[in-house]
Amino acid sequence: MKTWLFGVWIFVGLSVVGTAIAKPTPVAIVVHGGAGTILKENLTPELEQAYKQTLRDAVEAGHKLLLQGEPGEKAVIAAIQILETSPLFNAGVGAVYTWEGEHELDASIMHGGSLNAGAVAGVKTIRSPIAAALAVMHQSPHVMLSGKGAQLFAQEQGLEIVDNSSFDTERRKQALERAKARMLGAGVYGNQQGNERFGTVGAVVLDKQGNIVSGTSTGGMTAKRYGRIGDSPVIGAGTWADNASCGVSATGHGEFFIRYHVAADICSRVKYQGVSLIDAADTVINGVLKAAGGDGGVIAIDNQGNIATPFNSPGMYRAKIDKNGKLAVGIYKAWEKE
Amino acid sequence: MKTWLFGVWIFVGLSVVGTAIAKPTPVAIVVHGGAGTILKENLTPELEQAYKQTLRDAVEAGHKLLLQGEPGEKAVIAAIQILETSPLFNAGVGAVYTWEGEHELDASIMHGGSLNAGAVAGVKTIRSPIAAALAVMHQSPHVMLSGKGAQLFAQEQGLEIVDNSSFDTERRKQALERAKARMLGAGVYGNQQGNERFGTVGAVVLDKQGNIVSGTSTGGMTAKRYGRIGDSPVIGAGTWADNASCGVSATGHGEFFIRYHVAADICSRVKYQGVSLIDAADTVINGVLKAAGGDGGVIAIDNQGNIATPFNSPGMYRAKIDKNGKLAVGIYKAWEKE
Repeated sequence: MKTWLFGVWIFVGLSVVGTAIAKPTPVAIVVHGGAGTILKENLTPELEQAYKQTLRDAVEAGHKLLLQGEPGEKAVIAAIQILETSPLFNAGVGAVYTWEGEHELDASIMHGGSLNAGAVAGVKTIRSPIAAALAVMHQSPHVMLSGKGAQLFAQEQGLEIVDNSSFDTERRKQALERAKARMLGAGVYGNQQGNERFGTVGAVVLDKQGNIVSGTSTGGMTAKRYGRIGDSPVIGAGTWADNASCGVSATGHGEFFIRYHVAADICSRVKYQGVSLIDAADTVINGVLKAAGGDGGVIAIDNQGNIATPFNSPGMYRAKIDKNGKLAVGIYKAWEKE
Repeated sequence: MKTWLFGVWIFVGLSVVGTAIAKPTPVAIVVHGGAGTILKENLTPELEQAYKQTLRDAVEAGHKLLLQGEPGEKAVIAAIQILETSPLFNAGVGAVYTWEGEHELDASIMHGGSLNAGAVAGVKTIRSPIAAALAVMHQSPHVMLSGKGAQLFAQEQGLEIVDNSSFDTERRKQALERAKARMLGAGVYGNQQGNERFGTVGAVVLDKQGNIVSGTSTGGMTAKRYGRIGDSPVIGAGTWADNASCGVSATGHGEFFIRYHVAADICSRVKYQGVSLIDAADTVINGVLKAAGGDGGVIAIDNQGNIATPFNSPGMYRAKIDKNGKLAVGIYKAWEKE
């Protein structure tokens, strides 16, 4: 009898302590606008300010929805659409040009609770590729749709269709011309250099329901040919989410991110090796990938709301609002002082 | 002096033992021709015999090259091309039809030593999609090419281009008509059933140089639409190879194999959890994937030449020659008695 009563008291006591220390589920968000050879001397103060403001707008838009208890995918879409709409980033408006002088866009999204995912590859006329990826995830029996078929599907889903030229920017056009001139001069295709190799936007969130959601959107590689598909629409390479471990959106030299299945590998290390997100992400980006010659970085969140943003290139456009509500923006190695 | 001499003797002794127990590097190969609702009552003895003979031909062709010391990718290509050429399997000739009545083929290959990879998606006129995947791996700066661009690349590489109708078979045409009639009748797209959902061929080898190479080739899903890309050309989902762990080729309901990044996950478990290939492959196919409702199976080889072939569907066409040179062929749950 006494033993039984003692047990009850322990139970009640633990419950009280449990209630006392139970915090509201934290929310967290991190976004990126691409990694690469981003050097302070190449950015005017005005341009730097414009990048930072847009990153801040994106992360705040997503965070607001998370605080309202909206599902993570809404926050991911809201944040990414701000980056897709901005001409500063290589996604949507401001996407790089293919060899043929067009824009071929890729995007993907993954939900860490259902492990459901959606992706579109090589779409030319869908205004918001990340919205199309979401439609594939929710409304299609498939995970990955490509080209004209993906566009037909998006149209049937009522997504906005635009002319390919609506993604044009003079800056990217000049980048294409420089790349083609060099390749034609050297008689070699495929030696994309520096920032021609990458540029992507992405967002990863932990929502109030405890779900991790990751999304990525890109215009791919400058002067790409042959219907090249990079890592952004490849689930496991450019995007991954699993509530049991973490969520990742990658940006970098896509071929390496596919070959090293970077996004999923970081989460597999967390899940199977029991290492922290910070350690796993750092090992893959600054260890494995750097040794292989793969430039780039990732943004990642684990199921406790911890954020990692390692990159092995000089810079990565990024912003985060952590589980304590603290906002930070960064372009070069260190986070900016707010 | 005496201590020093003692050390030398230990060293010499160990070297002799080392030489004595060093076996020649084993070679091993396993192939599949798709998993699904394969039931003995649905196969005539003649058809069953034809399947078994073709699987045996494929595995023997690859094994012969491995014994000669040829690189693993040659063995993978030789084995898969026999299956692509046969009208029995859903790859190359005998590929299923898309909704529009065409064939859209996918293939990929990965080398476990270099972690290099190549894939083509949605190609219509390349005679051997697996050969195109190899060309992407060796001759292109990219990993994944799609559609017309992939075909242009293959043509430039001197690969054989054929008319799409050369992949036609009456049996697959009837399967398309049945699927479309049911979908149009029900007013719903995407409810592929039973064997309409899958059918793939693949090969995984361990070569004399100790390299694991994996390849997969497929016609995809009967009545597929919207430029759907399945798991076969997705590195990490349908195909994976890493000498540090294992190589895998998958066959099944592709969307699940992408969402659970099946091929890479098996190898991540081997690498990070230290479990055996047999256990890792069984856990993913008969545990994780079965619980999620994902039908299918994999063939896999680890860096010691051990072979695993789990599947959670009634059957999987398969054949292997293990590291002891022993051949086995299987269609249903048990391997056939030779």
